[in-house]
Amino acid sequence: MKDGWLVCSGCSYKIPYDAGIGQCTCGGIFFVGYDLERVKASWAASPLRERASTMWRYHELLPVEHPEEAVTLGEGWTPMIRIPDWEEKLSLNRLWVKRDEQNPTGSFKARGFSVAVSLLKERGINKVAVPSNGNAASALAAYAARGKLEAFVFVPMDCPGIIVEESMRYGAKTYRVNGLIHDAGKIIEDGKSSEGWINAGTAKELGRLEGKKTMGLELAEQLSFEMPDVLLYPTGGGSGLIGIWKALCELKEMGLLHGDLPRFVSVQEVGCTPVVDIFHSGAKDFVPYSEDTTSSPTGVRVPNPPAGGLILSILRKTGGTAVAVDQREIRQAQNYMEHQGISASPEGAIVFASLLRLRETGDIRAGERVVLYNTAHALKYLEWPLPSSIPVISNYREYAAKIANAQQITPQE
Amino acid sequence: MKDGWLVCSGCSYKIPYDAGIGQCTCGGIFFVGYDLERVKASWAASPLRERASTMWRYHELLPVEHPEEAVTLGEGWTPMIRIPDWEEKLSLNRLWVKRDEQNPTGSFKARGFSVAVSLLKERGINKVAVPSNGNAASALAAYAARGKLEAFVFVPMDCPGIIVEESMRYGAKTYRVNGLIHDAGKIIEDGKSSEGWINAGTAKELGRLEGKKTMGLELAEQLSFEMPDVLLYPTGGGSGLIGIWKALCELKEMGLLHGDLPRFVSVQEVGCTPVVDIFHSGAKDFVPYSEDTTSSPTGVRVPNPPAGGLILSILRKTGGTAVAVDQREIRQAQNYMEHQGISASPEGAIVFASLLRLRETGDIRAGERVVLYNTAHALKYLEWPLPSSIPVISNYREYAAKIANAQQITPQE
Repeated sequence: MKDGWLVCSGCSYKIPYDAGIGQCTCGGIFFVGYDLERVKASWAASPLRERASTMWRYHELLPVEHPEEAVTLGEGWTPMIRIPDWEEKLSLNRLWVKRDEQNPTGSFKARGFSVAVSLLKERGINKVAVPSNGNAASALAAYAARGKLEAFVFVPMDCPGIIVEESMRYGAKTYRVNGLIHDAGKIIEDGKSSEGWINAGTAKELGRLEGKKTMGLELAEQLSFEMPDVLLYPTGGGSGLIGIWKALCELKEMGLLHGDLPRFVSVQEVGCTPVVDIFHSGAKDFVPYSEDTTSSPTGVRVPNPPAGGLILSILRKTGGTAVAVDQREIRQAQNYMEHQGISASPEGAIVFASLLRLRETGDIRAGERVVLYNTAHALKYLEWPLPSSIPVISNYREYAAKIANAQQITPQE
Repeated sequence: MKDGWLVCSGCSYKIPYDAGIGQCTCGGIFFVGYDLERVKASWAASPLRERASTMWRYHELLPVEHPEEAVTLGEGWTPMIRIPDWEEKLSLNRLWVKRDEQNPTGSFKARGFSVAVSLLKERGINKVAVPSNGNAASALAAYAARGKLEAFVFVPMDCPGIIVEESMRYGAKTYRVNGLIHDAGKIIEDGKSSEGWINAGTAKELGRLEGKKTMGLELAEQLSFEMPDVLLYPTGGGSGLIGIWKALCELKEMGLLHGDLPRFVSVQEVGCTPVVDIFHSGAKDFVPYSEDTTSSPTGVRVPNPPAGGLILSILRKTGGTAVAVDQREIRQAQNYMEHQGISASPEGAIVFASLLRLRETGDIRAGERVVLYNTAHALKYLEWPLPSSIPVISNYREYAAKIANAQQITPQE
């Protein structure tokens, strides 16, 4: 990308754009910076409303050198629909659901990997790995297949079977890990130099956050740049929420937004609530979650989000909050959404449940305009048995030992 | 709808538009007729390219009275992507896949039911039933939920479990039928007067065909109205194919298409090939399939499509053909598509397999421009066990007897 730069979200250190850099030496994640005046001029010359109905309509705000050669499967520009019944029941002025499950591979993760894999391809990289609670694994698998990269995905043992199956079908080398997502991430970090993997995990490279940013760009454009009051987002690693916030900040700086940024609300499930706990403790710094996780195997089960401090800062800066809901509330919310004809992933239902809770507490008020994100397709989470042939590992040493007999551990190639 | 009419596709009998009419007395299906000059003027005044990214951008060509009140979940305007690797391998000028699995409920059936349920709602109807091989059941379930109609769906015993689960989650009263889709249809026909059901089965009402028509309108607009050479479509009841053809005829009459209509190709699976058999026999009339069906439980397993004669006529008029592929070819094609990162429903894979076959036979030639339709999401077809509590019936008499104890047979309400 020409004329861009990177600025650390932690220490504000600024360097010229470099697609190969992920995190700052301070541990903060790097944000890609753009010449926004130039973007604005380009949007004026070629109006957004006449552009292709994919997230690549915003190519000037994505760091890919050759957007016309991007690795694309038709991602983004997903529908945003109102739920009039619940607007009435909850006395809201507007209630929208952004249906991001209608992406390739049935989840919002398509956005991040379309950009990330495009960037890797531009750099000539051909091996990429990701630790995932599920949807990132299958999305990487699909985009890597499309871009002809070799993909390696590492998921927790209890990752939904259908999503694991999907990853394998798209041809990713797929491994189950005795542990949680950070244990999966450690395997990649430990093995990357020997194996030649690029780690495309949350906050490890620039593309995924930028891709997820398009959720915010679309939200704005689909609402004619009139900001809602509140935005609720299921928060695991948090890069979706960070991406949306970054997008709205860029549009604000370009002078395109009407109204203040919405209040950002992070939603988690009881049993793994690092963001909720630290937000309400008032602490300034993010500390790893010390309790045992007992929540469900979904995208929001991330005990130690790599950019936790940034999430807290966004919630506070926008006057938002963080909230945890329990299994009973989630099941109830899923049922409510389904009876509106809307596929409700656990993550989408978590968000809907938190809306109900926050209306009750008064954190969301009558007459407000609210946006929910449904990040994945419900059907991906049905309990589905996996063949026992999928290799299970606990650490990189085990991976290295087992890979000696490659035939046994690549169930689908 | 004002100023519209109905014309029988069988005998050309023409009557004023009436939303309550499905089939002509001759057995032919009625087509909705529009004042195309008026549509053209309306599109000139408000250009398509500036409209909402749903199939309702074509509301002037849909028979709904109040499109602004349509029962919508964000359907249509799905991506169409190229597969450059296979363009090269097959020496094609262009190879596109229309990704219609990226619709609400993960299939193209969303289109038909968005219109059908909207029409039923306008008529004040509150009970609707459908016989289905699966995707129509879950799509009706979702749109009926959204429109607050009561939905009854009847599927064959071996209907994919995940789709049955989906129907129930959206709140449809769901029944498994000892038999095939026409046996399911007979239950509805036999019971409709006693139960107050409207039969929304293929060719029974006007909305579904008109909704599916938007696949053709989008194809045209997404290709800048330049027609491809060949269009391959998985053919069960055939209303998708008929809808696309009707759309292109309307656009042609409006003077908007460049080039001839593409050659339409119907694709079926070995083991249930009524269209293929009769097409190649050269017979003029459609006769019910007399052999035992041995094909898979997918959308193309329809031994006796209600508008079979019309399908034959479209294939012949456009210089197309009909082709059947077997399980081995389908599995191979599924694998090819997945390794391009594309979700491949059995129906989508059937189409891809038939492309390979027709390139080999020379029916599709080097340098041609080809469009494939992927009508549903692959994950919906994973083998998934259903609870034994779902009622199984063989005929309407059994339904009527069992419904006496409503609690036992409505697994989800």
